[in-house]
Amino acid sequence: MSQKTSSQIRCVTCTAPVNIAVIKYWGKTDEKRILPTNPSLSVTLGQDELRAKTSVAVSSRFTEDRMWLNGIEQSVNSPRVQNVLKEIRRRAHKRKSGENKDDLGLAHHVHIVSENNFPTAAGLASSAAGYACLVYALSKLFEVNGEISDIARQGSGSACRSLYGGYVLWKMASKDDGSDSHAVQVQPESHWPQMRALILVVSDQKKHVGSTEGMQTTVQTSELMETRFKLVERRTEDIIKAINDRDFPTFAKITMQESNQLHAVCLDTYPPIFYMTDTSRLIVRLVHAINDILGKVKVAYTFDAGPNACLYLLEEDVPRVLSLVRHFFPASKDAGNSSFVTGLKFDEIEPSTADTSQINLPISEGAVKYIIHTKVGPGPQVLKDPKESLFTPEGKPKL
Amino acid sequence: MSQKTSSQIRCVTCTAPVNIAVIKYWGKTDEKRILPTNPSLSVTLGQDELRAKTSVAVSSRFTEDRMWLNGIEQSVNSPRVQNVLKEIRRRAHKRKSGENKDDLGLAHHVHIVSENNFPTAAGLASSAAGYACLVYALSKLFEVNGEISDIARQGSGSACRSLYGGYVLWKMASKDDGSDSHAVQVQPESHWPQMRALILVVSDQKKHVGSTEGMQTTVQTSELMETRFKLVERRTEDIIKAINDRDFPTFAKITMQESNQLHAVCLDTYPPIFYMTDTSRLIVRLVHAINDILGKVKVAYTFDAGPNACLYLLEEDVPRVLSLVRHFFPASKDAGNSSFVTGLKFDEIEPSTADTSQINLPISEGAVKYIIHTKVGPGPQVLKDPKESLFTPEGKPKL
Repeated sequence: MSQKTSSQIRCVTCTAPVNIAVIKYWGKTDEKRILPTNPSLSVTLGQDELRAKTSVAVSSRFTEDRMWLNGIEQSVNSPRVQNVLKEIRRRAHKRKSGENKDDLGLAHHVHIVSENNFPTAAGLASSAAGYACLVYALSKLFEVNGEISDIARQGSGSACRSLYGGYVLWKMASKDDGSDSHAVQVQPESHWPQMRALILVVSDQKKHVGSTEGMQTTVQTSELMETRFKLVERRTEDIIKAINDRDFPTFAKITMQESNQLHAVCLDTYPPIFYMTDTSRLIVRLVHAINDILGKVKVAYTFDAGPNACLYLLEEDVPRVLSLVRHFFPASKDAGNSSFVTGLKFDEIEPSTADTSQINLPISEGAVKYIIHTKVGPGPQVLKDPKESLFTPEGKPKL
Repeated sequence: MSQKTSSQIRCVTCTAPVNIAVIKYWGKTDEKRILPTNPSLSVTLGQDELRAKTSVAVSSRFTEDRMWLNGIEQSVNSPRVQNVLKEIRRRAHKRKSGENKDDLGLAHHVHIVSENNFPTAAGLASSAAGYACLVYALSKLFEVNGEISDIARQGSGSACRSLYGGYVLWKMASKDDGSDSHAVQVQPESHWPQMRALILVVSDQKKHVGSTEGMQTTVQTSELMETRFKLVERRTEDIIKAINDRDFPTFAKITMQESNQLHAVCLDTYPPIFYMTDTSRLIVRLVHAINDILGKVKVAYTFDAGPNACLYLLEEDVPRVLSLVRHFFPASKDAGNSSFVTGLKFDEIEPSTADTSQINLPISEGAVKYIIHTKVGPGPQVLKDPKESLFTPEGKPKL
């Protein structure tokens, strides 16, 4: 699996996807081991549009563990990176017990280089893709087999869901040590080939409360949170059934209710936490307006710890929905229109006046910066072509 | 009590205050009789700044019931106005049983003229003041004594709280017929003379979901609402204790948590209801930032079914808090600064750089349209001076 960039360096290069939850992770029962207060469920998105790419290398010539993210060296001493490195090495040791461990270089230092094919600042769950990719690449480098999503979980909770394609459930722990809180695939990406996602990246200057801090405060102060925990389990069962049955209206309604409830408990936090902006709320109103004029729930929105919307919809509805989204959220005149919608191709149509005249919303030019059109995708991949490596032959990041 | 404008017309003129809830009314168990799902508690504001004024007249010369609001004739046939008129007449009849009812003109038609001393469009609970004033004036005209807040309740739920000054509780019904769901004064306005209110009127073009429709949808669709009902009763007891003890930090914290929870269940509604805007949220962040730098909870915010904020604070903190509010929300240059803060006088001070440098918020010029500075005030008043009447001698509205 691994490549040798020179006689002394072994390396592996992988990609991992972004996932966007439809049942949200918000709250830990254990901060250190990252055990969630409720199950969560996500959709893995296509890697052509959104992915992390990570090369990991091990060599007796490396004098310390080092890591570069998007071209900038970062400390490897964060507890989360350390959790991942230690656990991968521990499992590799255990598995290799009795074998010659020197082959794998378990005693040597690693270099890690990682980059995203989308701006980190866009607020698109880059840490989930990043930790999933790191864990996957390290598992290939050190030949760790079996379940590894629980290792990714200890890097960044939702990263565990990026280790599978399609529709992915992150289970709560039932064992005391939390070891069974990992991700499982509910359905592969091929199960519902028509499913599409539109990510509306919203212009926003504000610094947000980080999700780690935010969920802690919510668990400590929101009086509604306990009720939410009870509700989420039933909602998770219901959405799994909707996915299994390819029942879009049910899938969509639960997705929207769940997103709203997450932001409701954030608002019920003291002091309150706000992630949605006026633009986010206009997107919500547009989606409900579109569903109203279509007479059926055809589009769903979901929001994470920031103002960007992820819309889920079926392929056949993309042209009409995108025409309306672009009508009410045209690109800013400065930005130009050429790269406003990126990703998968679609039939560009003009919005019909029959549709737009029924929707009583302002036109908000420039409020959406750009749109990414993608679909449901597979889990992490190994890139075997040595040209894909992010390392120079000396084990330093390519610039 | 009543005046005769001519030999055939008897009339009464009254004023009634606005009230702003700190424990919110949101949800009815009975739409027709307007019985609330939970107790609520409000602060009655000063009438110099915010009041409805209503003249009611009765005459054998009137050929029909008629009503003018802010200079425009309105139908009296709305179910809510009819509820009020019928109930007042029923009680007057009952009380006068055996006496000469003709003295009161109970068989005759009424004319009603009402106006506010603040813009109705500002979204400042004008219907509460208006219905309270109508019921109070009619009760004086027809000499109905005893509890009348239950009649106002049937006009507009929260109107019942405007029939008392100070701190007012609207009780849930315990009797099956709902007749004991009325307002009671928890403490008069004199109890806590330092209490002040700042109303920040926020610029806003949007049409909101009306509160009647909004609360119906919330009760029907929010899964968190049931938990809220249980929490509100304890919260109501706690805030009554804080008011009795003049414990501002507790009063303020409950007020803020309660406002946030109301908007949380609105967001948990399907489709979600949004009343707070980006400006509302900046006000929330400013209030928490001010409390942080003061090292104590000195200001509270509360939001009703719209983006305006009502801040509660003590007299001694008004200059410093207003200096900061004006620093971060200066008047728009077009509007000028002269009438930006109206109402009670206060010491105008410059914001200190020590304060402003600690608050990391943008300066939002023009986001707040104007500010009303007021205090806790008394209940409805009768105006005996005939010049105060809104009627011409013929029983028509003065123009």
